[in-house]
Amino acid sequence: MTINFKDYVASVSDFPEKGVTFRDISPLMTNGEAYAAATDKIVEYAQSKGVEMIVGPEARGFIVGCPVAYKLGVGFAPARKKGKLPRETVSANYDLEYGESTLYMHKDAVKPGQKVLVTDDLLATGGTIAATIKMVEELGGIVVGTAFLIELSALNGRQKIQNYDIFKLMEY
Amino acid sequence: MTINFKDYVASVSDFPEKGVTFRDISPLMTNGEAYAAATDKIVEYAQSKGVEMIVGPEARGFIVGCPVAYKLGVGFAPARKKGKLPRETVSANYDLEYGESTLYMHKDAVKPGQKVLVTDDLLATGGTIAATIKMVEELGGIVVGTAFLIELSALNGRQKIQNYDIFKLMEY
Repeated sequence: MTINFKDYVASVSDFPEKGVTFRDISPLMTNGEAYAAATDKIVEYAQSKGVEMIVGPEARGFIVGCPVAYKLGVGFAPARKKGKLPRETVSANYDLEYGESTLYMHKDAVKPGQKVLVTDDLLATGGTIAATIKMVEELGGIVVGTAFLIELSALNGRQKIQNYDIFKLMEY
Repeated sequence: MTINFKDYVASVSDFPEKGVTFRDISPLMTNGEAYAAATDKIVEYAQSKGVEMIVGPEARGFIVGCPVAYKLGVGFAPARKKGKLPRETVSANYDLEYGESTLYMHKDAVKPGQKVLVTDDLLATGGTIAATIKMVEELGGIVVGTAFLIELSALNGRQKIQNYDIFKLMEY
């Protein structure tokens, strides 16, 4: 059976603010078949890139990346907001679609030379992913690819990560 | 090879505040073998309970629960903080170890009668898990078990969820 992944995306008007259509991927995740099928697609992509480590920004990046890490038998490291990581960190600032923020990673999260896949649910403006990539590279990791459930192409986030390979399951 | 999971826990003094020792499970997650072995233990427990759905509070509950959901071929639903879920929600308040907060779940996250496993990294005071259980039950789900990487037994969180089965990988 082929799954039409868009059947599992809820499009919500005017969230988080008026004029924005939010693409909610929670129906995809609550459906076991769809979640497994989406994960398998990213696993296949990751295998083609020789991925040794997965990194994802909080919090939906965890839902996308963690099962991929498990299936590959590799580790997962989170990129988190302020005050969440107790040990020594690196950080990177970014402009968000709706504001500004900073992300942090533990200094030992990625080993120098490790081939890293960066995952998130959405590629929107690309700010979060660009900040995550910057930290991975500061730690000596090699970003061999990025993977998203959805690319919002009108926001042109791929311009911010144009030197990196992009895998996406769906596009709006 | 048997893994000693405690080898992958970093104990950090005085975080997030003086006098508290934070048990950081990120070393376990960044190590592919340890992460897979920990996940497999929870999968085995979930299978023994006939689990049909996983629910985890943000954000470390996702890292624990998502690979378990994938392996079982079941869905994953997050319990999230305010403003994160775009559609109709239920909510539950809880006292946190360091403050107070509210969690939310989408109304369609769990189907009536579904056998649910609730996952998190730590069983501390039990407030987060009790709130998550309350929402799952409000939606008609049956909580057949709870699973944690670590139980902090001195905080006696199991008293708050004494009617539920508890699986934990480690205890401090």
